[in-house]
Amino acid sequence: MFENSQENKTNLSQLGEFGLIDHLTKNFSPKLESTVKAIGDDAAVVRFEDKETLISTDLLIEGVHFDLAYMPLKHLGYKAIMVNLSDIYAMNGTATQVTVSIAVSNRFPVEALEELYAGIQLASKIYNVDVVGGDTTSSTSGLLISVTAIGHAEKEKVTYRNGAKANDLLVVTGDLGAAYMGLQVLEREKEVFKANPNSQPDLDQYTYLIERQLKPEARKDIPPLLNDLGVQPTSMIDISDGLSSEIIHLCKHSKVGANLFEEKIPLDPAVISVCEEFQIDSTMIALSGGEDYELLFTIKQDDFDKIKGNPHLTVIGHMTEENEGMHLITRANQKLPLIARGWNSMEEKD
Amino acid sequence: MFENSQENKTNLSQLGEFGLIDHLTKNFSPKLESTVKAIGDDAAVVRFEDKETLISTDLLIEGVHFDLAYMPLKHLGYKAIMVNLSDIYAMNGTATQVTVSIAVSNRFPVEALEELYAGIQLASKIYNVDVVGGDTTSSTSGLLISVTAIGHAEKEKVTYRNGAKANDLLVVTGDLGAAYMGLQVLEREKEVFKANPNSQPDLDQYTYLIERQLKPEARKDIPPLLNDLGVQPTSMIDISDGLSSEIIHLCKHSKVGANLFEEKIPLDPAVISVCEEFQIDSTMIALSGGEDYELLFTIKQDDFDKIKGNPHLTVIGHMTEENEGMHLITRANQKLPLIARGWNSMEEKD
Repeated sequence: MFENSQENKTNLSQLGEFGLIDHLTKNFSPKLESTVKAIGDDAAVVRFEDKETLISTDLLIEGVHFDLAYMPLKHLGYKAIMVNLSDIYAMNGTATQVTVSIAVSNRFPVEALEELYAGIQLASKIYNVDVVGGDTTSSTSGLLISVTAIGHAEKEKVTYRNGAKANDLLVVTGDLGAAYMGLQVLEREKEVFKANPNSQPDLDQYTYLIERQLKPEARKDIPPLLNDLGVQPTSMIDISDGLSSEIIHLCKHSKVGANLFEEKIPLDPAVISVCEEFQIDSTMIALSGGEDYELLFTIKQDDFDKIKGNPHLTVIGHMTEENEGMHLITRANQKLPLIARGWNSMEEKD
Repeated sequence: MFENSQENKTNLSQLGEFGLIDHLTKNFSPKLESTVKAIGDDAAVVRFEDKETLISTDLLIEGVHFDLAYMPLKHLGYKAIMVNLSDIYAMNGTATQVTVSIAVSNRFPVEALEELYAGIQLASKIYNVDVVGGDTTSSTSGLLISVTAIGHAEKEKVTYRNGAKANDLLVVTGDLGAAYMGLQVLEREKEVFKANPNSQPDLDQYTYLIERQLKPEARKDIPPLLNDLGVQPTSMIDISDGLSSEIIHLCKHSKVGANLFEEKIPLDPAVISVCEEFQIDSTMIALSGGEDYELLFTIKQDDFDKIKGNPHLTVIGHMTEENEGMHLITRANQKLPLIARGWNSMEEKD
């Protein structure tokens, strides 16, 4: 898991820039009708006819967003795609293409980048997106991945952050907090490993948490599910920074308040038990943990019957008038102001 | 020019991630009808009706692609946009939107990033593109800029690298080699400055070269010019890596050969004189210098009369059958094989 063997590896300079990108992308063949031209020209060309084009971009940086001590490169490639597709799904759209650029120091052998691209390719296959462009370049330190995701949606389906109204229901997909607790487990194991490189960690009971951290899945299923249910969300965002700050984003953009009910927040049993083990409050983790890549959205009250009982969707609160503010209603029926304490990548990380 | 004063500057951590991006982009208001939603949601939304969407992305990395010792941040922001717009123009398209993500270490004060964004804003204003998204994040070292440019073109106008035929004329815009020689001048002055920080460089005679390096302009004018002239190029590419490697790209994608005539290569008098001063062959610089951001394209021989005499366009050769190979025909009428010796960012830089 933490090995760093570099015997018999191919140095990057043996391929050169053009050779490297050709080598890494040689198995990437476009499959979608909307992809007119993929890798290999000055720009990619896509065609969405009369739909809106959606574009989202994100940077992932070694030492800031990921730690290669416990993040296998294949998983990293997969996750880099997920993080960006999640933004397209959060617009209620269909993701169709990505461009992937990497900057890499020459401490990485070609084989390491092949692993990274294997993860990118796996993600693009499972999520049915074409890799249509990108760039490889050298970095003076570490690894950096820049992904741009492209998608489309019919004009009347596109869902912004600013459409929520007072009394709309606040709905979240899946469960929260697992990715963050997976990271806590991995960081603890890294310290154990540093102290004793021969230790064999038994991580079986943390499988779900670690998977949520290392191999998150974006909610590709939600836009078509909502379409099938006949529900047009009034606002939507993906949960990358923690539930609390995402609710605040929706409220600020929509000029509304919100009441979030602690008892409604969906938590996996593995999150509850690991929070007990780490002596952390599980609600705090759901509110501020981040990296869940679930979707948070609002719907009209009239649509409640359409989503009621769906195992993917949990109503966790409702929107209020703006002047009522944003609150967490605790199990003890206390009303606490919601504070954005999401994971903030501009903060110094130790 | 080389100052590095940081008194009375605002530390990045005083703003935080959301505060920083809001602060830097507060003056960016979208102007184009095709921009449905710009900064401030999970993804940007654009609409091109029945046109093809063009997407291009590039990374610029401190210490690899630029050196802040002589590259003012405002120019860097401007250049980062140019590099990407150039790719859209090279598809014979109209550039309309960009996303800009930066990763930055906390050695940069907020004021430095304001300079960078002032350059981005200036470029977006002059080139009539909207900044529709982006991301700021911390880096463990230095500054990195990732730009994605978006544009459109009518289906029948999009120009790929692979459409050149034998006997097509090879045409270049503007003049070549100046950006690379500007870099040579700046690097020489940096060494002088290191030896004597009080030296006052007299760079007047190098103004054109330095401008081409620090403030390149992408050829926004060429797609409409070709349209007005009634010329549909058969293939096109932008010159980022040097004429030689770009000709090779067109030939390989189009499966043709080429003859390039040394005497036809357009050089500014300032390039000729600085090459004499540096004792470098000016043809070599045009072939391998890079960063000119001119356009290289091929046209049918029948279209020659339409472009003849246009001051922006120079015919520098013609395409041949693939088995004839790619050659430079020297002034002495020697036939030398064309070799890609473009500036290669995967090479080790000292």
